[in-house]
Amino acid sequence: MSPRPPGTLTGVGVGPGDPGLLTVAGRAAIAAAAAVFAPRAADRTGSMAAAVADRPVVEIPSPMRAGAGAAAGERYAQAILPTLRAGGDAVFLTEGDPTLYSTWGHLAAAVRRRCPAVPLVTVPGVSAVTAAAAAAGLTLATGDETVAVVPGSYVDADQVRLLLAQFTTVVILKAARALPWLRPLLAAEGRLEEAVYVRRAGTPAEEVAWGLRDLQAPDDYFACVIVRAGGRLR
Amino acid sequence: MSPRPPGTLTGVGVGPGDPGLLTVAGRAAIAAAAAVFAPRAADRTGSMAAAVADRPVVEIPSPMRAGAGAAAGERYAQAILPTLRAGGDAVFLTEGDPTLYSTWGHLAAAVRRRCPAVPLVTVPGVSAVTAAAAAAGLTLATGDETVAVVPGSYVDADQVRLLLAQFTTVVILKAARALPWLRPLLAAEGRLEEAVYVRRAGTPAEEVAWGLRDLQAPDDYFACVIVRAGGRLR
Repeated sequence: MSPRPPGTLTGVGVGPGDPGLLTVAGRAAIAAAAAVFAPRAADRTGSMAAAVADRPVVEIPSPMRAGAGAAAGERYAQAILPTLRAGGDAVFLTEGDPTLYSTWGHLAAAVRRRCPAVPLVTVPGVSAVTAAAAAAGLTLATGDETVAVVPGSYVDADQVRLLLAQFTTVVILKAARALPWLRPLLAAEGRLEEAVYVRRAGTPAEEVAWGLRDLQAPDDYFACVIVRAGGRLR
Repeated sequence: MSPRPPGTLTGVGVGPGDPGLLTVAGRAAIAAAAAVFAPRAADRTGSMAAAVADRPVVEIPSPMRAGAGAAAGERYAQAILPTLRAGGDAVFLTEGDPTLYSTWGHLAAAVRRRCPAVPLVTVPGVSAVTAAAAAAGLTLATGDETVAVVPGSYVDADQVRLLLAQFTTVVILKAARALPWLRPLLAAEGRLEEAVYVRRAGTPAEEVAWGLRDLQAPDDYFACVIVRAGGRLR
């Protein structure tokens, strides 16, 4: 008798927070799984991804320090592997899309190392980047235009100045830490009116602020700033 | 008696082609609309977006020449405005996401100019960029990593060489025209094994080719190449 084959692990992007932006395939995978898991950040009251799932979700505490992606992947793998080894299908929820600033890749790598027989499936989702653009009524790129996506924790003013000259659209994620120098930089470059601050797109807490004016929550970790040459299409 | 208010125009991203990657909100908007419209390229047999919709769709011929975005927006607006002015809600379908290489922004601008009272709503979708990454089992970015998205029709070898040095991940859309110089460039830079060619992600015609080897359809207009420093997470 051969041992029971392991279950499938599916990474599902639940989108930016609006349950309506979950995909049909994502919803089906969540409903069919033996168990659904999601990361829970220590500094947050609950998982947005779990709230979208509409069924019980096992929340795994996640290390939120910078560079902790590989460690988080190991921790999630340890929590999920018993279900998979027992033959149960598991779903791992990520906010936005699993391929863009998610720990899904680290988790998949950790599972592949520990139990190579586990089938791995990725169900893409609506990313926070395009959801923010949609909330602002903004086109990121059309035709031959170009887009750069960078985390605000990574870049400095000189790098952003270079990107602004090089790309049609620059998306700065995790923008909170960059705001103190980003606003004067954009003003000095004459680009402030082409910039929009967006946080929590697609949720009741959504905020869209053109010109980065009158921000309600300038310290929101998940806020982004989008700067598009020429602003909106007219 | 006041005139009847115009209907709402909603741009819906249907995702990369798999009907399962349509969002719940997108499906609801399609079902509720008085009429659903989609662009039809002259050189294609039918609209992928229309195939996902699962209801009758009015296909509007689209000018596919480079730089025709604004003209396409005007043409679509002319076709859709009668429905809106009669008070009917209309949906305009775009492949992938409406904010990323779609004519939705041009259409919205044209409608805003001609009939400012029309409410405009954007329902984001799964973009071809993250769907391609998911198909390849690839993480675009995690932690402090960076992503550049450029059309292959826009960049040349020198620009791509610069982007490869500057960004963790470079996504080259419409890669068909770039392949003749892109492959030797990646080989010379020692980056060919970190590059993956993806076309029609999420459809039966999906193709994923690491190292850009043995391509089945190198001339596919909608193919993309993703180059990630270090390749997949391990």
